[in-house]
Amino acid sequence: MEPIASTLPGQAEMNVLQPISVQDGRVILIDQRQLPEKLEYFDATELSQMVFAIKEMVVRGAPAIGVAAAIGLAARAIQLAPECADTAEFIAQLKIAKNTLQDSRPTAVNLRWATEQVFALACSQPASAASVIANDMMKFAQNLIDDDIRINRSIGDNGAALLNDCLSVLTHCNAGALATCGWGTALGVIRSAVENGVKLTVYVDETRPRQQGARLTVWELQRDGITPTLITDSMAGYMMAKGKVDAVIVGADRIARNGDAANKIGTYSLAVLARAHEIPFYVAAPISTIDPLIATGAEIPIEERDPDEVLVISGQRIAAEGTRVENPAFDVTPAHLITAVITENGVLRAPYVKSITEALES
Amino acid sequence: MEPIASTLPGQAEMNVLQPISVQDGRVILIDQRQLPEKLEYFDATELSQMVFAIKEMVVRGAPAIGVAAAIGLAARAIQLAPECADTAEFIAQLKIAKNTLQDSRPTAVNLRWATEQVFALACSQPASAASVIANDMMKFAQNLIDDDIRINRSIGDNGAALLNDCLSVLTHCNAGALATCGWGTALGVIRSAVENGVKLTVYVDETRPRQQGARLTVWELQRDGITPTLITDSMAGYMMAKGKVDAVIVGADRIARNGDAANKIGTYSLAVLARAHEIPFYVAAPISTIDPLIATGAEIPIEERDPDEVLVISGQRIAAEGTRVENPAFDVTPAHLITAVITENGVLRAPYVKSITEALES
Repeated sequence: MEPIASTLPGQAEMNVLQPISVQDGRVILIDQRQLPEKLEYFDATELSQMVFAIKEMVVRGAPAIGVAAAIGLAARAIQLAPECADTAEFIAQLKIAKNTLQDSRPTAVNLRWATEQVFALACSQPASAASVIANDMMKFAQNLIDDDIRINRSIGDNGAALLNDCLSVLTHCNAGALATCGWGTALGVIRSAVENGVKLTVYVDETRPRQQGARLTVWELQRDGITPTLITDSMAGYMMAKGKVDAVIVGADRIARNGDAANKIGTYSLAVLARAHEIPFYVAAPISTIDPLIATGAEIPIEERDPDEVLVISGQRIAAEGTRVENPAFDVTPAHLITAVITENGVLRAPYVKSITEALES
Repeated sequence: MEPIASTLPGQAEMNVLQPISVQDGRVILIDQRQLPEKLEYFDATELSQMVFAIKEMVVRGAPAIGVAAAIGLAARAIQLAPECADTAEFIAQLKIAKNTLQDSRPTAVNLRWATEQVFALACSQPASAASVIANDMMKFAQNLIDDDIRINRSIGDNGAALLNDCLSVLTHCNAGALATCGWGTALGVIRSAVENGVKLTVYVDETRPRQQGARLTVWELQRDGITPTLITDSMAGYMMAKGKVDAVIVGADRIARNGDAANKIGTYSLAVLARAHEIPFYVAAPISTIDPLIATGAEIPIEERDPDEVLVISGQRIAAEGTRVENPAFDVTPAHLITAVITENGVLRAPYVKSITEALES
C-alpha cells in the first residue's frame, strides 16, 4: 500500500513535535520512516492507512500507537455513522475495526488500552445516534493527546529527581516526543532533568535493527539543544566499564503485574549490563503501559518482524543472499533488574506486585 | 589513496579462501571492504598500499594483519635492496618501514609480533647482501601463511571438543578464514566441531559498526555449507535468555599475561551476558596474540576510529548532521569472564598467569 504524504509546512518550523494530530477532520502523523532526512506527514484518516502506519512504523512507540489507534477508531466511527442502519450495526462494525487495529502490533498494550477505552465509550450509549457517538469518540480520542502530554510531564517531574546526581545517562531506542504525543517518557525524564538544570551527557544506543536511537532520539534531542552522543548497541558495556554511564533509562511497551517490562530488543542486555556495573536501571512509562491481565513477562507476546529489517539498511543489503535471520522486536527485562518504574502516579519500586497494584488503584 | 583492484578470476571459484597471497612477486589481498557483494582483490605490494589496506580494513583480523604486514615488510625489503648503499642503510630503511606498519593499527599485537620477527631475521645477518636478506625475509614471511593455517587447525582441534555437547554457539565479528590466513580461530573451532560431526546452530552478531559478522562471517560460513543465523548485537541477551545459546566463542586482538583479552567492540558485553546466563565464554587465538610485555588489559591501547563508521552505512547517513559519536573499535574482557583461551598449545584456563606463562614457554 502506498503511503500518502501530506506536508504541513507550518509545522515543519514548529519546535514542538506533534507526532499525532487531527486537522480539518484528517488524522495526520509525522512519518517517522523519513526521519531524520525529512520531516514529512502521513494522512492516516482511513482505517487501512492507520493500520499500515502502525504496522510499518510510520507511527511507533507504545503510547503513540495507543493514541493513534484510538483516533483511528474514532475516525472510522465518523465514516461508519452515516453508513450504518442502526447503532447496533455501527457498534458491530466498530468492533471489527477495533480488532483490526489491535492486531496490527502485538506487544505494546497501550494499543489495546486506548482502543478499548474509546470503544467502551461507544458501547456505553446504545440509545444515541451513531453520529453523536462518533463525535463523542473523536473528542475523547483527541483528548488522549493532551492527557498523554500531561502524563509525560508528570513522569518527567517524578523521574527527574532520580537523575540529580548523574553526569550521564544512557537511553535505548526512542522513548521520546516521537514515541508519545509529546515530551516523551524516558526522554521526558531527561528533558525534565535538563530543565531543572542538571548537566547531563546523554548517550544514545543506535538501536538496531530499525535504528530509532540514531534516527529519532538523536534528532529530537538535538532540536531541544541537548546534544547527545551516539554509540552502537555493542558499545554500551564498554561505556559502563569506563564509568561513563551513571544511569540507564528506557521506555516500555508492556509491564506485567510483577514489574517485568517488555521494551525494544536490546533493553534486556542493557539491564544485565547495568546490574553488573551497579548502575541504576529505570523504566519510564505511563500507567496505561501496565497490563493488569498478566502476572509476569513470560505472558507478553514478542513480535517477530520482517528479516529485511536486519538485512537491509537504507535500501542497501548488508549480508549475503539466503542469510537466515531472527528478528524479535522486543525483549522482556525481569523486574529484579529494574531499579524503579517511573510513572505519572509516582516512582514504583520493588516489591512491584505491591507498588504496581497501588499505582493501578490510585 | 585509490585502491588498485586486481581480480583473480581463478580464485573466485576456489573454495579455499586465501585472504593473503604472494603471486608473481605481487602481494595480493582479498578486498574485504567489498564483501559480500564482490570478491575482489587488492594489490598491496607497495608499502603505502599495505598501510592503506591495514588502516582501511581491506585486510583485517589480528592474525591476518600480522602476516600481511610481515609480507609487506618483506616486499619493501626486496624493493629497498638494490637502492641501498650497504646493509646498514638497508636495515635503517627497513626499520622505518617496520615502524610505519606497526603504527597503522594500535590494538592487535600480532602486527608487532610478525613484523618484529621478519625484521629480526634481517638484523641477524649483517654480513649478507641486502638482496639475499630480502629474499630470506620474503621466504620467512610467506611461511607465516602456512604456519598460521596450521596453527588455526590446531586451535580448531583443541577447541572442537569443548563444543561436543553444544547445540548452538554465538560468535561476534569475524574470527574466520578472512581474519587469518585460512580456517580461522573462533570459526576454525566451529569448523573443526562441524567436521567432527557436531550439529551446531551458529548465531552471528552483526557487529556494528563495521558489520563484520553480517558481511564476512555469514558469507564465509555459507561457502562452507554452514548456514548461520544472523542477529543484531542487541539480540544476544534475548537469545541467551531463551536458552538458544550454549556457548560463545570469539577471537582476540591482544591478550595480556593475566588473560584479559581485547577483541572487537561488543565482545565484553557478550562476556557479561554469558556469565549472567552461565554460558561458557571462549576466546580462540594463536599464542602470538598474547602480549608478554603487558600484565593486564588496562595496558592495551584501544583504537578510536572514524565517527563515519557509525554514522554512514553503505554510503547512507543514518543520523542527523552534527551528531556526536564515540567509536572505540575494541573492548577488553577481563580474564575472570573467560572460561578458556583456546590456543595451538592447548586450552588455557584460570589461573591464566600460570597457564599463559606455561603456554608461552612450551
